[in-house]
Amino acid sequence: MRMSFKEKIKGIGGNASYEAKARALRAQLEAKIPAGLKLPSAILEDPPLDVTRIPEICGLLTVQELAITELDATAVCQKIAVGELTAVEAVTAFGKRAAIAHQLTACLTDFFLDEGIRQAQQLDEYFQKEGKVIGPLHGLPISIKSHYPLKGTVGCGGFLVNTETSTEDCDMISILRSLGAVFYVKTNQPQSVMHLESKSSCGRVLNPHNTNLTAGGSSGGESALIAMKGSCIGLGTDIGGSIRCPSAHCGIYGIRPSSRTTPIRGLLWYQHGQDGVFASSGPMCRSGRDMRLFLEAVLGANPSLRDPDVLPIPLKVPDLTQKKLRVGIMMHDGVVMPHPPTIRALNLVKEKLEASSEVEVVDYIPYDHDRGYNIIRELYYEDGGATVRRILEESGEDMHPLTEWVISPPHVKNHDAAQIWKLRDQRDDYRREYSDHWWSQNVDVVVCPPFQGTASRHDTAKYWGYTAIWNLLDYPGAIFPTGLVADQAVDIYQELPIPMSAADEYNISLYDAAIFKGAPVSLQTVSRRFNDGLVLAAQDVIERIIQS
Amino acid sequence: MRMSFKEKIKGIGGNASYEAKARALRAQLEAKIPAGLKLPSAILEDPPLDVTRIPEICGLLTVQELAITELDATAVCQKIAVGELTAVEAVTAFGKRAAIAHQLTACLTDFFLDEGIRQAQQLDEYFQKEGKVIGPLHGLPISIKSHYPLKGTVGCGGFLVNTETSTEDCDMISILRSLGAVFYVKTNQPQSVMHLESKSSCGRVLNPHNTNLTAGGSSGGESALIAMKGSCIGLGTDIGGSIRCPSAHCGIYGIRPSSRTTPIRGLLWYQHGQDGVFASSGPMCRSGRDMRLFLEAVLGANPSLRDPDVLPIPLKVPDLTQKKLRVGIMMHDGVVMPHPPTIRALNLVKEKLEASSEVEVVDYIPYDHDRGYNIIRELYYEDGGATVRRILEESGEDMHPLTEWVISPPHVKNHDAAQIWKLRDQRDDYRREYSDHWWSQNVDVVVCPPFQGTASRHDTAKYWGYTAIWNLLDYPGAIFPTGLVADQAVDIYQELPIPMSAADEYNISLYDAAIFKGAPVSLQTVSRRFNDGLVLAAQDVIERIIQS
Repeated sequence: MRMSFKEKIKGIGGNASYEAKARALRAQLEAKIPAGLKLPSAILEDPPLDVTRIPEICGLLTVQELAITELDATAVCQKIAVGELTAVEAVTAFGKRAAIAHQLTACLTDFFLDEGIRQAQQLDEYFQKEGKVIGPLHGLPISIKSHYPLKGTVGCGGFLVNTETSTEDCDMISILRSLGAVFYVKTNQPQSVMHLESKSSCGRVLNPHNTNLTAGGSSGGESALIAMKGSCIGLGTDIGGSIRCPSAHCGIYGIRPSSRTTPIRGLLWYQHGQDGVFASSGPMCRSGRDMRLFLEAVLGANPSLRDPDVLPIPLKVPDLTQKKLRVGIMMHDGVVMPHPPTIRALNLVKEKLEASSEVEVVDYIPYDHDRGYNIIRELYYEDGGATVRRILEESGEDMHPLTEWVISPPHVKNHDAAQIWKLRDQRDDYRREYSDHWWSQNVDVVVCPPFQGTASRHDTAKYWGYTAIWNLLDYPGAIFPTGLVADQAVDIYQELPIPMSAADEYNISLYDAAIFKGAPVSLQTVSRRFNDGLVLAAQDVIERIIQS
Repeated sequence: MRMSFKEKIKGIGGNASYEAKARALRAQLEAKIPAGLKLPSAILEDPPLDVTRIPEICGLLTVQELAITELDATAVCQKIAVGELTAVEAVTAFGKRAAIAHQLTACLTDFFLDEGIRQAQQLDEYFQKEGKVIGPLHGLPISIKSHYPLKGTVGCGGFLVNTETSTEDCDMISILRSLGAVFYVKTNQPQSVMHLESKSSCGRVLNPHNTNLTAGGSSGGESALIAMKGSCIGLGTDIGGSIRCPSAHCGIYGIRPSSRTTPIRGLLWYQHGQDGVFASSGPMCRSGRDMRLFLEAVLGANPSLRDPDVLPIPLKVPDLTQKKLRVGIMMHDGVVMPHPPTIRALNLVKEKLEASSEVEVVDYIPYDHDRGYNIIRELYYEDGGATVRRILEESGEDMHPLTEWVISPPHVKNHDAAQIWKLRDQRDDYRREYSDHWWSQNVDVVVCPPFQGTASRHDTAKYWGYTAIWNLLDYPGAIFPTGLVADQAVDIYQELPIPMSAADEYNISLYDAAIFKGAPVSLQTVSRRFNDGLVLAAQDVIERIIQS
């Protein structure tokens, strides 16, 4: 039986007390969206699977607003800086479109366009008075993932019970504010903030290109919103793929910087001090250049002076006209074979790169990714998931099947102190072996899948290996859309594959060409730790060659 | 009753099986020291408290050898580089003097001068043939703390039972070797590598200036050896004061760099993966410029390309002629008041600096050092010391009272996973609060005690607050000798102090001006994380002013 749209977009349930609180929170959010921005119920009752065109055809946005929302962040900043656009115009356009996006994808958890407009007015006044911008992000509307505390807005640390109205900005927000950014929405993330999908008490985030698929997670509110053009740039976090997976699934850009180069202090979370592997904060956006704009602006504000845990390592974007870039292509990780659309994209990229004189192409051999993946899965919940179970039991929130999966054996188990040290020692050994392996491969960057397929069906994303392995190694990774979309006419198995692992068998079972129709096919560019600038520069070169 | 010298220098005992192994190891070391370098028993039966002059008067070294051993590392490198000295001459002189030093201080755990001379011969041949040095440390003899694996030599991870003859160089050794360094001795460290003294199965390291006092620890073999001029530069490690305390106690220089800027991978150790706080590796030496020589050479070899855990943060030594340095003086940490000699040195330094127009002097107020110290003490042994107890029980090695102290309540307790996260969260909060505090103090560097007095009496070093607090914060710290020595005529309490804490009461009880006679008085220069270059530059300025 076909699921109704209303059913599909519904959030996580729970006991009566939980349901009452969740209802109140959702009602609070609905009430913040102006009546004039509500979509007609005719649309909401049965929208098409691809909802990306609705903002253009629903009639709620002006031609000018639609034009503004086509801009990337760099263009928004540039136009504001030369007086061609005001900050108020920018945030108004993106804010209105965000309200529409939310009704179609459940991408938001808070909406405060009025406050954004007030902030924008002050910036416009400053610009008029001083004749210059206040910082490199002057007037840029930035959407913010729910778990970043932003003064006066609703945020959550993965569960309804740790939802709060923040009384202060965290470091990252405070830095962005000082650079001139404007805030207007907070975005949805999954229960536990540890799924590669995004279903929370606020709703399930749908993929705008095909609402039967997930927008990815955990920064899925961001990816859906940005793909809907309700934001040109947003702020995500990534400890296992949470920036890269949703960016890939929605056909946008996103980079997970090397951890501790960008601030993460103060995030709403439920396992503070869990430091076996670090989350990283970074941008999700609609162009390659926007990733650089964001990172240069944030690192330019010297976050390490404020946060002693941030490393003062500058972003160095190399000039690749001076050398022949060596690109490794990793077709699969030896554990799970990507679905046909991703293989098609990899083959295309390989072909194009091999035909170019600008780069040298190498077959990249993965090094024991299964072992690395097992280590990071174990690192996420060294208490065997006890904290998560306790939170859910005490608060009456239903456990989502992906939460159950992520905190359960065989990957997850309880550790005493000596077992934690042993696990972390295994992590360090793996990192060292991988580093030696990387050098043996003679590559500058690796192009690889960001996931074992395009966006997955809801509640099925149970393998993180294509992103989490790079978190364990702390290798920066960026996502770019290949321009291809899943096509049921061509993306079919020539013969049924022989599974490489249980995870592979599961992944093969999930594939049905018709289901993934219209899903963007994206790839990931990775390099060694702290080579974030090389990733950005190389991805530019690679994209240019692919598009040529 | 006065303890005989033989009794004083004796190592840690154990059960019969342990004793047999310890005896064999000691005999092996004794056998490596040539008969021609043995001191007459007349000297060894009852040496003076200050043994620093014995190498000069014992007649075992030539005038030329004595002259060579007066050189600092920079001078050795310079002379070799211009052909005024050969690598063989250098290592021979230091090696012979090291053999003498060992008999008086138990500073060595392995002696392989033959191998050093072979290495030096190859370097001399290279120099003669190529007319240039192989690297910035060409021909420099470097002494190595026991727990660094160095191919073919004996090393130990804190207990007799984890003693090994290493089959490979660890990263740091391999880098030093590639830079031209010559190896000839390994040096003693305490049981557990976690005392601010250095008594092991190999013997108790005595302070050359006063053998009733400790040479400090855990890199106490290094400090005694360097103070005896049996080495001009050595390699130590520091996770709670282990480079700085022994450097201070023996009147030499030493820096604990910000952790993870220099390689530590592969160290012999018994709690691998214990990553709540990181050890740091750095030089101990006889001049300020030697610390810079060492760090520039090692960082210049790009250790982060080899070890993915090393941070690629360069050493930036600022030019302080361009700005007025703001020096905070921290007279005490609010927990334990230093003994009179240290207070005298601080007052002298303050006076001299205040009289100088080159610097601005500020009274530095410590921020809750007691809390920070409690956190790091808890971080060292998150398993409640169970691993250490097990190792000692299984191997029959006696537990040294300082081992018992360092793994016992109230500081140490067993933790489960959630408790470990909580502890590490407390660490992160403290670091952030301290960072805010530092900025409020408006200083570039802080000059403070490296210990609550000069070198302490054996088996009494039970407060690490003056060094360990900076490990917790990961603020680099360097040691310099003030040129003062403890003087029983002036270093007396004017009135008996009122204790600030139980640790202070204990420290007061340890003081007796006569006991510390001749002990060097040293100070510590500290700055924020990753400001290692500023520490070096500032310490140069401060020393110059003090000596003027």
